[in-house]
Amino acid sequence: MENRMGKLYVVGFGPGGYEHMTAKCIDVINNADIITGYTTYVEMLKEFFPDKNYLATPMMQEVKRCRMAVEEAMKDQTVAMVSSGDSGIYGMAGIIYQVAEEMNADIEIETVPGVTAASAAASVLGAPLMHDFAVISLSDLMTPLDLIMKRVDCAGQGDMIVCLYNPKSKKRTGYVEQAAEILMKYRKPETPVGIVRHAGRKEESKQITTLVELKNAEIDMFSVVIIGNSQTYVRNGRMITPRGYALK
Amino acid sequence: MENRMGKLYVVGFGPGGYEHMTAKCIDVINNADIITGYTTYVEMLKEFFPDKNYLATPMMQEVKRCRMAVEEAMKDQTVAMVSSGDSGIYGMAGIIYQVAEEMNADIEIETVPGVTAASAAASVLGAPLMHDFAVISLSDLMTPLDLIMKRVDCAGQGDMIVCLYNPKSKKRTGYVEQAAEILMKYRKPETPVGIVRHAGRKEESKQITTLVELKNAEIDMFSVVIIGNSQTYVRNGRMITPRGYALK
Repeated sequence: MENRMGKLYVVGFGPGGYEHMTAKCIDVINNADIITGYTTYVEMLKEFFPDKNYLATPMMQEVKRCRMAVEEAMKDQTVAMVSSGDSGIYGMAGIIYQVAEEMNADIEIETVPGVTAASAAASVLGAPLMHDFAVISLSDLMTPLDLIMKRVDCAGQGDMIVCLYNPKSKKRTGYVEQAAEILMKYRKPETPVGIVRHAGRKEESKQITTLVELKNAEIDMFSVVIIGNSQTYVRNGRMITPRGYALK
Repeated sequence: MENRMGKLYVVGFGPGGYEHMTAKCIDVINNADIITGYTTYVEMLKEFFPDKNYLATPMMQEVKRCRMAVEEAMKDQTVAMVSSGDSGIYGMAGIIYQVAEEMNADIEIETVPGVTAASAAASVLGAPLMHDFAVISLSDLMTPLDLIMKRVDCAGQGDMIVCLYNPKSKKRTGYVEQAAEILMKYRKPETPVGIVRHAGRKEESKQITTLVELKNAEIDMFSVVIIGNSQTYVRNGRMITPRGYALK
């Protein structure tokens, strides 16, 4: 890396396994003075980079963690703020820019993109994302539920494949079913749905079900749910959305 | 790699630069007997892996290339079918499964996910994808234009950020403007729009403009266009969509 003075990298390390990290992610982590992130992510990285200097903070303390990261970068440290997936998709990139501005920090910030959960989950299921799709988070912590469900409805109207991030938590258990009900206004009950838990990690598992059966599926906060469009089908255990290539 | 007999990897090598390839992508390419893909992609990889055995085919011969790849894998070769971005997002994964099934090929197929163009472009622009978004290809080669524009309209109604893939080609020059007109039914003319050309490659360039000015922007087939939602703003040359964190 050219200039290592006062630099803050916002790094998405992909689904979790070392193999899905980009060369740049690995390089940045290897060269960082401090690696910071939410405890779960730090624990995941310690397995692959045991000798680094970590600073973990619990979830729900994003702003505090970002301020610490910016402060360290202001002391000419090279800081890697890590998260799983792509740091630019529902990641830490936005809040880092906001906090650095609020603090008038004269530091360099660089976002290192990674493999997002939709890509990781799709690769496990087959090829469900061969056509236009919507990525929607079911977390209503910072978004009104009405708006979330309106987006699901719009994706349904537009026959877009739907990737649901944060489909369930201990507190939010009914939103996936609500989303399925909305999509069944536009799609057949037998529309294929893939659920991948811990995509791209050792504990990875998948299920393929249908829109009408989605309410019975095992889903948790480590899952991504991909709901096919009107063309999606399942063959040999793979979920496939055709692009429309004529096989001639 | 555990078993290298008759295996076909469908590999997304990310935006193009070596640094954005995943460890697995690099490993698969290093160990493949044959690397196949459309000529442009093969040329990009030759720079980083000069001594490999490549089999390039021109664009528009996807099915032929897939059949060749499957045939080679059936001869117990390890084949890497490469494309830029993520092979699971508008990539070769779907067509490979379809062709292998048509050929009754008893081979192992594995999709290796990569960094998709939306992630690469977002990292260059700032943090535009911090909220729900739709990914829509403006190529009408295999999708009716009416359906494409309906999807743009639905994304507009749902206040989703919009990533346009394949925004323009030599033949298709007016679709981006048409999409902008549709989105202006729902969003202010000054809504920020980011355009990244050759995201994640040496030739990378970016522009930040607005929905109303999008018609004057320089866009080509190597560009990705990201149109903000109602909350997206530009500060210090960065395009940011807030997640809603209160900075307190």
